[in-house]
Amino acid sequence: MEKVRRNERIGIMVSILCNHPNRIFTLNHFSEKFNTAKSTISEDIVIMRKLLNRFELGDIETVVGAAGGVRFIPALFKKNTIFIEDICNKLSEADRILPGGFLYMTDILFMPDVVQQFGEMLATQFYHTQPDFVITVETKGIPIALMTARALNCPVVVARRESKVTEGSTVSINYVSASSKRIQTMSLVKRSVQKGQRGLIVDDFMKGGGTAKGLMELLHEFEAEIAGVGVIISTADPKQKLVEDYKSLMLLKEVDETQRRILVEPSSWLKS
Amino acid sequence: MEKVRRNERIGIMVSILCNHPNRIFTLNHFSEKFNTAKSTISEDIVIMRKLLNRFELGDIETVVGAAGGVRFIPALFKKNTIFIEDICNKLSEADRILPGGFLYMTDILFMPDVVQQFGEMLATQFYHTQPDFVITVETKGIPIALMTARALNCPVVVARRESKVTEGSTVSINYVSASSKRIQTMSLVKRSVQKGQRGLIVDDFMKGGGTAKGLMELLHEFEAEIAGVGVIISTADPKQKLVEDYKSLMLLKEVDETQRRILVEPSSWLKS
Repeated sequence: MEKVRRNERIGIMVSILCNHPNRIFTLNHFSEKFNTAKSTISEDIVIMRKLLNRFELGDIETVVGAAGGVRFIPALFKKNTIFIEDICNKLSEADRILPGGFLYMTDILFMPDVVQQFGEMLATQFYHTQPDFVITVETKGIPIALMTARALNCPVVVARRESKVTEGSTVSINYVSASSKRIQTMSLVKRSVQKGQRGLIVDDFMKGGGTAKGLMELLHEFEAEIAGVGVIISTADPKQKLVEDYKSLMLLKEVDETQRRILVEPSSWLKS
Repeated sequence: MEKVRRNERIGIMVSILCNHPNRIFTLNHFSEKFNTAKSTISEDIVIMRKLLNRFELGDIETVVGAAGGVRFIPALFKKNTIFIEDICNKLSEADRILPGGFLYMTDILFMPDVVQQFGEMLATQFYHTQPDFVITVETKGIPIALMTARALNCPVVVARRESKVTEGSTVSINYVSASSKRIQTMSLVKRSVQKGQRGLIVDDFMKGGGTAKGLMELLHEFEAEIAGVGVIISTADPKQKLVEDYKSLMLLKEVDETQRRILVEPSSWLKS
Protein backbone atom coordinates (compact mmCIF):
# COMPACT_ATOMS: atom_id res chain seq x y z
CA MET A 1 0.00 0.00 0.00
CA GLU A 2 1.16 3.49 -0.90
CA LYS A 3 2.36 5.47 2.10
CA VAL A 4 -0.31 7.61 3.74
CA ARG A 5 0.87 11.01 4.92
CA ARG A 6 -0.04 12.65 8.22
CA ASN A 7 -2.49 15.13 6.67
CA GLU A 8 -4.20 12.24 4.88
CA ARG A 9 -4.33 10.05 7.99
CA ILE A 10 -5.80 12.89 10.03
CA GLY A 11 -8.38 13.69 7.36
CA ILE A 12 -9.58 10.08 7.22
CA MET A 13 -9.52 9.51 10.98
CA VAL A 14 -11.44 12.71 11.71
CA SER A 15 -14.02 11.73 9.09
CA ILE A 16 -14.46 8.20 10.47
CA LEU A 17 -14.54 9.23 14.12
CA CYS A 18 -16.91 12.20 13.66
CA ASN A 19 -19.26 10.12 11.54
CA HIS A 20 -19.54 7.47 14.27
CA PRO A 21 -19.88 9.32 17.59
CA ASN A 22 -19.24 7.27 20.73
CA ARG A 23 -17.98 4.24 18.80
CA ILE A 24 -14.61 2.95 19.96
CA PHE A 25 -11.97 2.43 17.27
CA THR A 26 -8.79 0.63 18.32
CA LEU A 27 -5.38 2.05 17.47
CA ASN A 28 -4.77 -1.26 15.71
CA HIS A 29 -7.66 -0.54 13.39
CA PHE A 30 -6.03 2.67 12.17
CA SER A 31 -2.53 1.24 12.33
CA GLU A 32 -3.55 -1.53 9.91
CA LYS A 33 -5.63 0.76 7.71
CA PHE A 34 -2.67 3.08 7.14
CA ASN A 35 0.14 0.53 7.53
CA THR A 36 1.67 2.85 10.14
CA ALA A 37 3.13 2.31 13.62
CA LYS A 38 0.75 2.65 16.56
CA SER A 39 3.04 5.27 18.09
CA THR A 40 2.56 7.44 15.01
CA ILE A 41 -1.22 7.01 15.21
CA SER A 42 -1.03 8.08 18.87
CA GLU A 43 0.70 11.28 17.82
CA ASP A 44 -1.97 11.86 15.17
CA ILE A 45 -4.65 11.49 17.83
CA VAL A 46 -3.05 14.13 20.06
CA ILE A 47 -3.08 16.52 17.10
CA MET A 48 -6.72 15.68 16.24
CA ARG A 49 -7.87 16.18 19.79
CA LYS A 50 -6.39 19.68 20.04
CA LEU A 51 -7.77 20.47 16.63
CA LEU A 52 -11.37 19.41 17.32
CA ASN A 53 -11.35 21.40 20.57
CA ARG A 54 -9.83 24.48 19.00
CA PHE A 55 -12.42 24.55 16.20
CA GLU A 56 -15.29 23.64 18.55
CA LEU A 57 -16.17 20.39 16.81
CA GLY A 58 -16.07 18.00 19.75
CA ASP A 59 -13.71 15.88 21.80
CA ILE A 60 -11.73 12.67 21.43
CA GLU A 61 -11.63 10.35 24.42
CA THR A 62 -9.15 7.58 25.04
CA VAL A 63 -10.66 4.39 26.43
CA VAL A 64 -8.21 2.11 28.19
CA GLY A 65 -8.44 -1.64 28.68
CA ALA A 66 -8.80 -4.69 26.47
CA ALA A 67 -11.61 -3.15 24.40
CA GLY A 68 -9.81 0.19 24.46
CA GLY A 69 -9.20 2.73 21.76
CA VAL A 70 -10.42 6.20 20.89
CA ARG A 71 -13.86 7.64 20.32
CA PHE A 72 -15.35 10.94 19.23
CA ILE A 73 -17.75 12.65 21.63
CA PRO A 74 -19.78 15.76 20.79
CA ALA A 75 -19.15 18.49 23.37
CA LEU A 76 -20.86 21.72 24.34
CA PHE A 77 -19.27 24.91 23.08
CA LYS A 78 -20.23 28.58 22.96
CA LYS A 79 -21.51 28.02 19.40
CA ASN A 80 -24.16 25.57 20.70
CA THR A 81 -25.66 28.27 22.90
CA ILE A 82 -25.69 30.65 19.94
CA PHE A 83 -27.41 27.98 17.87
CA ILE A 84 -30.12 27.49 20.51
CA GLU A 85 -30.62 31.26 20.83
CA ASP A 86 -31.10 31.39 17.08
CA ILE A 87 -33.71 28.59 17.21
CA CYS A 88 -35.50 30.41 20.06
CA ASN A 89 -35.76 33.48 17.84
CA LYS A 90 -37.19 31.39 15.00
CA LEU A 91 -39.73 29.78 17.34
CA SER A 92 -40.80 33.23 18.59
CA GLU A 93 -42.17 34.31 15.20
CA ALA A 94 -45.84 35.25 15.72
CA ASP A 95 -47.14 33.23 12.74
CA ARG A 96 -46.20 30.04 14.59
CA ILE A 97 -49.19 30.43 16.92
CA LEU A 98 -51.83 27.84 16.06
CA PRO A 99 -55.49 27.88 17.12
CA GLY A 100 -55.71 26.79 20.76
CA GLY A 101 -52.41 28.42 21.67
CA PHE A 102 -50.26 25.63 20.22
CA LEU A 103 -46.84 26.37 18.78
CA TYR A 104 -45.98 25.20 15.25
CA MET A 105 -42.51 23.67 15.40
CA THR A 106 -42.79 20.64 13.14
CA ASP A 107 -40.64 22.25 10.44
CA ILE A 108 -37.76 22.69 12.89
CA LEU A 109 -38.15 19.17 14.29
CA PHE A 110 -37.72 17.73 10.79
CA MET A 111 -34.68 19.66 9.56
CA PRO A 112 -31.89 17.07 9.70
CA ASP A 113 -28.99 19.44 10.45
CA VAL A 114 -30.95 21.22 13.21
CA VAL A 115 -32.16 18.04 14.83
CA GLN A 116 -28.67 16.51 14.57
CA GLN A 117 -27.37 19.41 16.66
CA PHE A 118 -30.23 19.02 19.15
CA GLY A 119 -29.41 15.31 19.41
CA GLU A 120 -25.70 15.90 19.97
CA MET A 121 -26.43 18.50 22.64
CA LEU A 122 -28.84 16.23 24.52
CA ALA A 123 -26.36 13.35 24.19
CA THR A 124 -23.64 15.36 25.96
CA GLN A 125 -25.84 15.24 29.07
CA PHE A 126 -26.27 11.47 29.03
CA TYR A 127 -22.99 9.82 27.95
CA HIS A 128 -22.21 9.05 31.57
CA THR A 129 -25.51 7.16 32.01
CA GLN A 130 -24.50 4.75 29.22
CA PRO A 131 -27.94 4.06 27.72
CA ASP A 132 -28.51 0.83 25.78
CA PHE A 133 -31.24 2.48 23.73
CA VAL A 134 -33.20 5.70 23.29
CA ILE A 135 -36.97 5.43 23.60
CA THR A 136 -39.67 7.81 22.35
CA VAL A 137 -43.30 7.70 21.33
CA GLU A 138 -44.45 8.29 17.76
CA THR A 139 -44.44 10.62 15.79
CA LYS A 140 -42.73 13.94 16.35
CA GLY A 141 -40.23 12.61 18.87
CA ILE A 142 -38.67 10.23 16.35
CA PRO A 143 -36.16 12.58 14.63
CA ILE A 144 -34.73 13.88 17.91
CA ALA A 145 -34.62 10.34 19.32
CA LEU A 146 -32.80 9.10 16.22
CA MET A 147 -30.22 11.87 16.29
CA THR A 148 -29.64 11.53 20.04
CA ALA A 149 -29.17 7.79 19.52
CA ARG A 150 -26.78 8.51 16.64
CA ALA A 151 -24.65 10.62 18.98
CA LEU A 152 -24.79 7.93 21.68
CA ASN A 153 -24.22 5.05 19.24
CA CYS A 154 -27.28 3.03 20.29
CA PRO A 155 -30.62 2.03 18.71
CA VAL A 156 -33.98 3.77 19.00
CA VAL A 157 -37.12 2.07 20.27
CA VAL A 158 -40.48 3.64 19.41
CA ALA A 159 -43.64 3.16 21.46
CA ARG A 160 -46.77 3.26 19.29
CA ARG A 161 -50.13 4.87 19.97
CA GLU A 162 -51.76 1.69 18.71
CA SER A 163 -50.22 -1.74 18.31
CA LYS A 164 -49.54 -2.87 14.76
CA VAL A 165 -50.08 -6.40 13.55
CA THR A 166 -46.86 -6.32 11.53
CA GLU A 167 -44.51 -6.10 14.49
CA GLY A 168 -45.40 -9.08 16.65
CA SER A 169 -46.61 -9.24 20.25
CA THR A 170 -46.65 -6.05 22.30
CA VAL A 171 -46.97 -4.80 25.86
CA SER A 172 -49.46 -1.94 26.33
CA ILE A 173 -50.09 0.48 29.17
CA ASN A 174 -52.63 3.20 29.82
CA TYR A 175 -51.49 6.56 31.06
CA VAL A 176 -53.05 9.94 31.72
CA SER A 177 -51.98 12.92 29.68
CA ALA A 178 -51.08 15.51 32.33
CA SER A 179 -52.36 18.45 30.30
CA SER A 180 -55.54 17.06 28.71
CA LYS A 181 -56.34 14.61 31.57
CA ARG A 182 -57.31 12.06 28.92
CA ILE A 183 -56.49 8.39 29.21
CA GLN A 184 -54.14 7.29 26.44
CA THR A 185 -52.54 4.02 25.40
CA MET A 186 -49.01 3.24 24.32
CA SER A 187 -47.58 -0.07 23.17
CA LEU A 188 -44.11 -1.45 22.75
CA VAL A 189 -43.06 -4.51 20.78
CA LYS A 190 -41.94 -7.21 23.22
CA ARG A 191 -38.76 -8.15 21.42
CA SER A 192 -37.51 -4.57 21.28
CA VAL A 193 -36.34 -4.25 24.92
CA GLN A 194 -34.56 -6.77 27.17
CA LYS A 195 -34.78 -6.95 30.95
CA GLY A 196 -32.05 -4.94 32.68
CA GLN A 197 -31.28 -2.66 29.73
CA ARG A 198 -31.04 1.08 30.28
CA GLY A 199 -33.37 3.32 28.26
CA LEU A 200 -32.98 7.06 27.72
CA ILE A 201 -36.39 8.72 27.26
CA VAL A 202 -36.34 11.45 24.58
CA ASP A 203 -39.21 13.54 23.23
CA ASP A 204 -39.76 16.80 21.39
CA PHE A 205 -42.05 18.53 23.88
CA MET A 206 -42.90 18.32 27.58
CA LYS A 207 -45.82 20.09 29.19
CA GLY A 208 -47.14 18.13 32.16
CA GLY A 209 -44.73 15.22 31.71
CA GLY A 210 -47.48 12.63 31.21
CA THR A 211 -45.88 11.07 28.14
CA ALA A 212 -42.46 10.78 29.79
CA LYS A 213 -44.14 9.26 32.86
CA GLY A 214 -46.00 6.81 30.60
CA LEU A 215 -42.75 5.78 28.93
CA MET A 216 -41.19 5.23 32.38
CA GLU A 217 -44.07 2.96 33.35
CA LEU A 218 -43.74 1.11 30.06
CA LEU A 219 -40.04 0.53 30.75
CA HIS A 220 -40.89 -0.75 34.24
CA GLU A 221 -43.13 -3.35 32.60
CA PHE A 222 -40.04 -4.58 30.74
CA GLU A 223 -37.94 -4.45 33.93
CA ALA A 224 -35.69 -1.99 32.15
CA GLU A 225 -33.91 0.90 33.84
CA ILE A 226 -34.28 4.62 33.16
CA ALA A 227 -31.06 6.31 32.05
CA GLY A 228 -32.66 9.76 32.00
CA VAL A 229 -35.20 12.02 30.31
CA GLY A 230 -34.35 14.63 27.67
CA VAL A 231 -36.60 16.91 25.60
CA ILE A 232 -36.09 19.71 23.12
CA ILE A 233 -38.57 22.09 24.67
CA SER A 234 -40.48 22.16 27.94
CA THR A 235 -43.09 24.59 29.18
CA ALA A 236 -42.60 26.87 32.19
CA ASP A 237 -46.17 26.14 33.22
CA PRO A 238 -46.93 23.84 35.00
CA LYS A 239 -43.70 24.16 36.96
CA GLN A 240 -44.43 20.85 38.67
CA LYS A 241 -44.11 18.06 36.08
CA LEU A 242 -44.99 14.39 36.52
CA VAL A 243 -41.26 13.58 36.15
CA GLU A 244 -38.77 15.17 38.48
CA ASP A 245 -35.49 14.98 36.69
CA TYR A 246 -35.20 15.91 33.03
CA LYS A 247 -32.99 17.94 30.69
CA SER A 248 -34.59 20.37 28.27
CA LEU A 249 -32.81 22.48 25.66
CA MET A 250 -35.39 25.28 25.63
CA LEU A 251 -38.05 26.71 27.90
CA LEU A 252 -41.41 27.86 26.51
CA LYS A 253 -42.49 30.65 28.85
CA GLU A 254 -45.54 32.00 27.07
CA VAL A 255 -47.82 31.58 24.04
CA ASP A 256 -50.31 34.44 24.09
CA GLU A 257 -52.88 33.90 21.35
CA THR A 258 -54.55 37.31 21.76
CA GLN A 259 -51.36 39.36 21.92
CA ARG A 260 -49.74 37.13 19.23
CA ARG A 261 -46.69 36.77 21.43
CA ILE A 262 -44.39 33.77 21.99
CA LEU A 263 -41.61 33.69 24.53
CA VAL A 264 -39.01 30.88 24.24
CA GLU A 265 -35.53 30.94 25.73
CA PRO A 266 -32.55 28.60 26.16
CA SER A 267 -32.69 26.51 29.35
CA SER A 268 -30.66 28.01 32.17
CA TRP A 269 -27.90 25.35 32.00
CA LEU A 270 -27.23 26.47 28.42
CA LYS A 271 -27.14 30.20 28.99
CA SER A 272 -23.84 31.90 28.31
CA MET B 1 -4.66 33.69 14.79
CA GLU B 2 -2.06 30.96 15.14
CA LYS B 3 -1.08 29.43 11.83
CA VAL B 4 -3.05 26.32 10.88
CA ARG B 5 -1.05 23.57 9.23
CA ARG B 6 -2.15 21.53 6.25
CA ASN B 7 -2.91 18.39 8.26
CA GLU B 8 -5.03 20.50 10.62
CA ARG B 9 -6.86 22.28 7.80
CA ILE B 10 -7.62 19.00 6.08
CA GLY B 11 -8.85 17.43 9.34
CA ILE B 12 -11.25 20.30 9.99
CA MET B 13 -12.46 20.64 6.40
CA VAL B 14 -13.13 16.90 6.07
CA SER B 15 -15.06 16.97 9.35
CA ILE B 16 -17.17 19.98 8.34
CA LEU B 17 -17.86 18.78 4.80
CA CYS B 18 -18.68 15.17 5.74
CA ASN B 19 -20.97 16.31 8.55
CA HIS B 20 -22.99 18.48 6.15
CA PRO B 21 -23.49 16.47 2.97
CA ASN B 22 -24.58 18.41 -0.11
CA ARG B 23 -24.11 21.79 1.56
CA ILE B 24 -21.96 24.22 -0.42
CA PHE B 25 -19.08 25.86 1.44
CA THR B 26 -17.26 28.69 -0.34
CA LEU B 27 -13.48 28.72 -0.56
CA ASN B 28 -13.72 32.12 1.16
CA HIS B 29 -15.34 30.47 4.15
CA PHE B 30 -12.34 28.20 4.68
CA SER B 31 -9.84 30.85 3.62
CA GLU B 32 -11.12 33.16 6.39
CA LYS B 33 -11.47 30.38 8.94
CA PHE B 34 -7.81 29.41 8.53
CA ASN B 35 -6.42 32.79 7.52
CA THR B 36 -4.90 31.09 4.46
CA ALA B 37 -4.80 31.95 0.76
CA LYS B 38 -7.60 30.55 -1.43
CA SER B 39 -5.00 28.93 -3.69
CA THR B 40 -3.75 26.92 -0.70
CA ILE B 41 -7.31 25.87 0.17
CA SER B 42 -7.73 24.75 -3.45
CA GLU B 43 -4.69 22.51 -3.10
CA ASP B 44 -6.08 21.11 0.15
CA ILE B 45 -9.33 20.27 -1.64
CA VAL B 46 -7.51 18.33 -4.36
CA ILE B 47 -5.81 16.28 -1.65
CA MET B 48 -9.10 15.72 0.22
CA ARG B 49 -10.91 14.61 -2.87
CA LYS B 50 -8.32 11.94 -3.74
CA LEU B 51 -8.31 10.87 -0.11
CA LEU B 52 -12.06 10.43 0.28
CA ASN B 53 -12.18 8.44 -2.94
CA ARG B 54 -9.22 6.25 -2.04
CA PHE B 55 -10.70 5.35 1.36
CA GLU B 56 -14.23 4.96 -0.04
CA LEU B 57 -15.77 7.72 2.06
CA GLY B 58 -17.41 9.81 -0.66
CA ASP B 59 -16.72 12.53 -3.17
CA ILE B 60 -16.11 16.28 -3.17
CA GLU B 61 -17.74 18.29 -5.94
CA THR B 62 -16.77 21.75 -7.07
CA VAL B 63 -19.72 24.03 -7.79
CA VAL B 64 -18.92 26.97 -10.06
CA GLY B 65 -20.69 30.33 -10.25
CA ALA B 66 -21.57 33.12 -7.85
CA ALA B 67 -22.88 30.75 -5.17
CA GLY B 68 -20.04 28.34 -5.91
CA GLY B 69 -17.76 26.39 -3.63
CA VAL B 70 -17.28 22.77 -2.66
CA ARG B 71 -19.61 20.16 -1.23
CA PHE B 72 -19.35 16.61 0.04
CA ILE B 73 -21.48 13.98 -1.69
CA PRO B 74 -21.83 10.39 -0.49
CA ALA B 75 -20.94 7.97 -3.29
CA LEU B 76 -21.49 4.28 -3.94
CA PHE B 77 -18.52 2.00 -3.35
CA LYS B 78 -17.93 -1.72 -3.18
CA LYS B 79 -18.28 -1.50 0.62
CA ASN B 80 -21.90 -0.32 0.24
CA THR B 81 -22.80 -3.51 -1.61
CA ILE B 82 -21.08 -5.56 1.09
CA PHE B 83 -23.04 -3.64 3.72
CA ILE B 84 -26.36 -4.38 1.97
CA GLU B 85 -25.43 -8.06 1.58
CA ASP B 86 -24.77 -8.15 5.31
CA ILE B 87 -28.17 -6.58 6.07
CA CYS B 88 -29.85 -9.11 3.74
CA ASN B 89 -28.27 -11.90 5.76
CA LYS B 90 -29.54 -10.39 9.00
CA LEU B 91 -33.05 -10.01 7.56
CA SER B 92 -33.02 -13.65 6.46
CA GLU B 93 -32.87 -15.00 10.04
CA ALA B 94 -35.88 -17.28 10.51
CA ASP B 95 -36.98 -15.74 13.83
CA ARG B 96 -37.90 -12.56 11.97
CA ILE B 97 -41.01 -14.19 10.54
CA LEU B 98 -44.09 -12.78 12.26
CA PRO B 99 -47.59 -14.27 12.26
CA GLY B 100 -49.22 -13.53 8.90
CA GLY B 101 -45.94 -13.84 7.00
CA PHE B 102 -44.71 -10.36 7.95
CA LEU B 103 -41.02 -9.66 8.33
CA TYR B 104 -39.74 -8.05 11.55
CA MET B 105 -37.30 -5.33 10.53
CA THR B 106 -38.09 -2.50 12.95
CA ASP B 107 -34.81 -3.00 14.85
CA ILE B 108 -32.79 -2.46 11.67
CA LEU B 109 -34.89 0.56 10.64
CA PHE B 110 -34.08 2.25 13.95
CA MET B 111 -30.32 1.72 14.18
CA PRO B 112 -28.89 5.17 13.42
CA ASP B 113 -25.65 4.04 11.75
CA VAL B 114 -27.45 1.50 9.56
CA VAL B 115 -30.19 3.87 8.51
CA GLN B 116 -27.64 6.63 7.88
CA GLN B 117 -25.96 4.33 5.36
CA PHE B 118 -29.32 3.46 3.79
CA GLY B 119 -30.10 7.17 3.52
CA GLU B 120 -26.76 8.03 1.93
CA MET B 121 -27.14 5.19 -0.58
CA LEU B 122 -30.65 6.27 -1.58
CA ALA B 123 -29.49 9.89 -1.79
CA THR B 124 -26.81 8.97 -4.36
CA GLN B 125 -29.66 8.07 -6.72
CA PHE B 126 -31.48 11.38 -6.36
CA TYR B 127 -28.92 14.22 -6.13
CA HIS B 128 -29.54 15.03 -9.78
CA THR B 129 -33.28 15.46 -9.19
CA GLN B 130 -32.55 18.25 -6.65
CA PRO B 131 -35.43 17.64 -4.23
CA ASP B 132 -36.63 20.51 -2.01
CA PHE B 133 -37.82 18.05 0.62
CA VAL B 134 -38.21 14.36 1.39
CA ILE B 135 -41.72 13.15 2.16
CA THR B 136 -42.83 9.99 3.97
CA VAL B 137 -45.79 8.73 5.96
CA GLU B 138 -45.58 7.96 9.67
CA THR B 139 -44.15 5.93 11.44
CA LYS B 140 -41.52 3.51 10.24
CA GLY B 141 -40.52 5.55 7.19
CA ILE B 142 -39.35 8.48 9.32
CA PRO B 143 -35.77 7.38 10.13
CA ILE B 144 -34.91 6.54 6.52
CA ALA B 145 -36.57 9.77 5.33
CA LEU B 146 -34.59 11.79 7.87
CA MET B 147 -31.26 10.23 6.94
CA THR B 148 -31.93 10.55 3.19
CA ALA B 149 -32.81 14.20 3.77
CA ARG B 150 -29.63 14.62 5.84
CA ALA B 151 -27.58 13.35 2.89
CA LEU B 152 -29.49 15.63 0.48
CA ASN B 153 -29.42 18.63 2.84
CA CYS B 154 -33.18 19.25 2.78
CA PRO B 155 -36.07 18.99 5.28
CA VAL B 156 -38.45 16.08 5.85
CA VAL B 157 -42.22 16.37 5.60
CA VAL B 158 -44.33 13.69 7.26
CA ALA B 159 -47.87 12.80 6.20
CA ARG B 160 -49.99 11.64 9.13
CA ARG B 161 -52.51 8.82 9.34
CA GLU B 162 -54.83 11.20 11.18
CA SER B 163 -54.67 14.98 11.31
CA LYS B 164 -53.50 16.49 14.58
CA VAL B 165 -55.01 19.59 16.12
CA THR B 166 -51.58 20.87 17.14
CA GLU B 167 -50.26 21.39 13.64
CA GLY B 168 -52.80 23.70 11.99
CA SER B 169 -54.90 23.16 8.87
CA THR B 170 -54.27 20.09 6.75
CA VAL B 171 -55.07 18.62 3.35
CA SER B 172 -56.29 15.01 3.42
CA ILE B 173 -56.71 12.37 0.74
CA ASN B 174 -58.08 8.87 0.65
CA TYR B 175 -56.13 6.13 -1.04
CA VAL B 176 -56.40 2.38 -1.43
CA SER B 177 -53.75 0.14 0.06
CA ALA B 178 -52.71 -2.05 -2.88
CA SER B 179 -52.15 -5.15 -0.74
CA SER B 180 -55.05 -4.98 1.75
CA LYS B 181 -57.46 -3.18 -0.65
CA ARG B 182 -58.58 -1.06 2.32
CA ILE B 183 -59.35 2.64 2.02
CA GLN B 184 -56.93 4.71 4.08
CA THR B 185 -56.49 8.40 4.84
CA MET B 186 -53.37 10.51 4.94
CA SER B 187 -53.06 14.18 5.84
CA LEU B 188 -50.41 16.79 5.35
CA VAL B 189 -50.13 20.13 7.12
CA LYS B 190 -50.85 22.93 4.62
CA ARG B 191 -47.90 25.11 5.50
CA SER B 192 -45.37 22.28 5.11
CA VAL B 193 -45.24 22.23 1.28
CA GLN B 194 -45.26 25.12 -1.23
CA LYS B 195 -46.59 25.00 -4.80
CA GLY B 196 -43.88 24.09 -7.33
CA GLN B 197 -41.52 22.44 -4.83
CA ARG B 198 -40.03 19.05 -5.63
CA GLY B 199 -40.65 16.21 -3.19
CA LEU B 200 -38.72 12.94 -2.98
CA ILE B 201 -40.95 10.13 -1.69
CA VAL B 202 -39.13 7.78 0.70
CA ASP B 203 -40.46 4.83 2.67
CA ASP B 204 -39.19 1.71 4.39
CA PHE B 205 -41.22 -0.90 2.55
CA MET B 206 -43.10 -1.25 -0.74
CA LYS B 207 -45.44 -4.09 -1.58
CA GLY B 208 -48.17 -2.93 -3.95
CA GLY B 209 -47.04 0.69 -4.03
CA GLY B 210 -50.34 2.06 -2.64
CA THR B 211 -48.66 4.28 -0.04
CA ALA B 212 -46.22 5.78 -2.55
CA LYS B 213 -49.12 6.35 -4.95
CA GLY B 214 -51.07 8.01 -2.13
CA LEU B 215 -48.14 10.32 -1.36
CA MET B 216 -47.95 11.21 -5.06
CA GLU B 217 -51.62 12.16 -5.07
CA LEU B 218 -51.13 14.18 -1.90
CA LEU B 219 -48.27 16.09 -3.57
CA HIS B 220 -50.48 16.73 -6.60
CA GLU B 221 -53.00 18.37 -4.25
CA PHE B 222 -50.23 20.80 -3.26
CA GLU B 223 -49.23 21.31 -6.92
CA ALA B 224 -45.81 20.00 -5.95
CA GLU B 225 -43.60 17.93 -8.26
CA ILE B 226 -42.30 14.39 -7.70
CA ALA B 227 -38.51 14.12 -7.64
CA GLY B 228 -38.60 10.33 -7.33
CA VAL B 229 -39.49 7.36 -5.13
CA GLY B 230 -37.01 5.43 -2.98
CA VAL B 231 -37.54 2.59 -0.51
CA ILE B 232 -35.32 0.34 1.57
CA ILE B 233 -37.01 -2.90 0.64
CA SER B 234 -39.58 -3.89 -1.99
CA THR B 235 -41.30 -7.19 -2.58
CA ALA B 236 -40.80 -9.27 -5.72
CA ASP B 237 -44.53 -10.03 -5.68
CA PRO B 238 -46.56 -8.30 -7.07
CA LYS B 239 -44.15 -7.46 -9.85
CA GLN B 240 -46.52 -4.78 -11.11
CA LYS B 241 -46.61 -1.93 -8.55
CA LEU B 242 -48.91 1.09 -8.53
CA VAL B 243 -45.85 3.28 -9.15
CA GLU B 244 -43.67 2.62 -12.17
CA ASP B 245 -40.37 4.15 -11.36
CA TYR B 246 -38.74 3.63 -7.96
CA LYS B 247 -35.38 2.73 -6.45
CA SER B 248 -35.17 0.01 -3.83
CA LEU B 249 -32.07 -1.10 -1.93
CA MET B 250 -33.27 -4.66 -1.34
CA LEU B 251 -35.68 -7.12 -2.86
CA LEU B 252 -37.81 -9.39 -0.67
CA LYS B 253 -38.33 -12.51 -2.76
CA GLU B 254 -40.01 -14.82 -0.27
CA VAL B 255 -41.34 -15.13 3.27
CA ASP B 256 -42.44 -18.73 3.76
CA GLU B 257 -44.16 -19.06 7.13
CA THR B 258 -44.43 -22.86 7.00
CA GLN B 259 -40.88 -23.55 5.86
CA ARG B 260 -39.57 -20.70 8.09
CA ARG B 261 -37.62 -19.33 5.16
CA ILE B 262 -36.91 -15.73 4.17
CA LEU B 263 -35.20 -14.72 0.95
CA VAL B 264 -33.90 -11.13 0.66
CA GLU B 265 -31.25 -9.93 -1.73
CA PRO B 266 -29.64 -6.65 -2.83
CA SER B 267 -31.44 -4.98 -5.74
CA SER B 268 -29.87 -5.73 -9.10
CA TRP B 269 -28.41 -2.20 -9.54
CA LEU B 270 -26.39 -2.79 -6.36
CA LYS B 271 -25.03 -6.21 -7.18
CA SER B 272 -21.30 -6.45 -7.53
